[in-house]
Amino acid sequence: MPAKVVHYSEVREEAVPDLEGVTVRWVISKDDGAPHFAMRVFELQPGCRTPQHAHWWEHEVFVLEGQGWLWTEEGEYRVQAGTVAYVPGDLEHQFRNQGEGVLRFICLVPHPELEGWAN
Amino acid sequence: MPAKVVHYSEVREEAVPDLEGVTVRWVISKDDGAPHFAMRVFELQPGCRTPQHAHWWEHEVFVLEGQGWLWTEEGEYRVQAGTVAYVPGDLEHQFRNQGEGVLRFICLVPHPELEGWAN
Repeated sequence: MPAKVVHYSEVREEAVPDLEGVTVRWVISKDDGAPHFAMRVFELQPGCRTPQHAHWWEHEVFVLEGQGWLWTEEGEYRVQAGTVAYVPGDLEHQFRNQGEGVLRFICLVPHPELEGWAN
Repeated sequence: MPAKVVHYSEVREEAVPDLEGVTVRWVISKDDGAPHFAMRVFELQPGCRTPQHAHWWEHEVFVLEGQGWLWTEEGEYRVQAGTVAYVPGDLEHQFRNQGEGVLRFICLVPHPELEGWAN
């Protein structure tokens, strides 16, 4: 596969089912040949949030714009442009936009086939 | 391991050996418990560049600030804030800051132990 170079805003924005005011762009994925992990760009409208949930895979997050909170079962953290967040697998977590503008962040996840590899 | 939430600028900035005007911050790494891949933040001063090289691992890049070029053996691409770049493994590549300010980008890489996993 060749390199892929694109502005994130050119990638199709998808609504996230059953989540009001939350969209995702899969900017780098298996479809591009990425062998190990995927990059998504999320946008949360003011007052909106991701589900409070846990799963085996980790998140590696970089906040691009906005103001919000990352809640986890272990604590709550304020996030803003420039915040980096590592959310380990199996930890309950939720992102909340409690600012007045959009909360935009990058969130990377391993491909599903990596489940169990690191254990 | 717990979650890690930090502003990227709080992470130690390291000079990259033998590369003038290039620094790296390992903002999420194995030291944080990340099981599969690492997130680094690079800064290139005006006129500076990364090596022209290739390696087995891929890059997943998001440009935060600045103006520059991603050169690859297959073509050259203008990059700026919001540009996403996927550089496959084994492709010769180089980032160049040809703007007037800093070129800052996130670059994610798989852990070395994943070599060969996807083949």
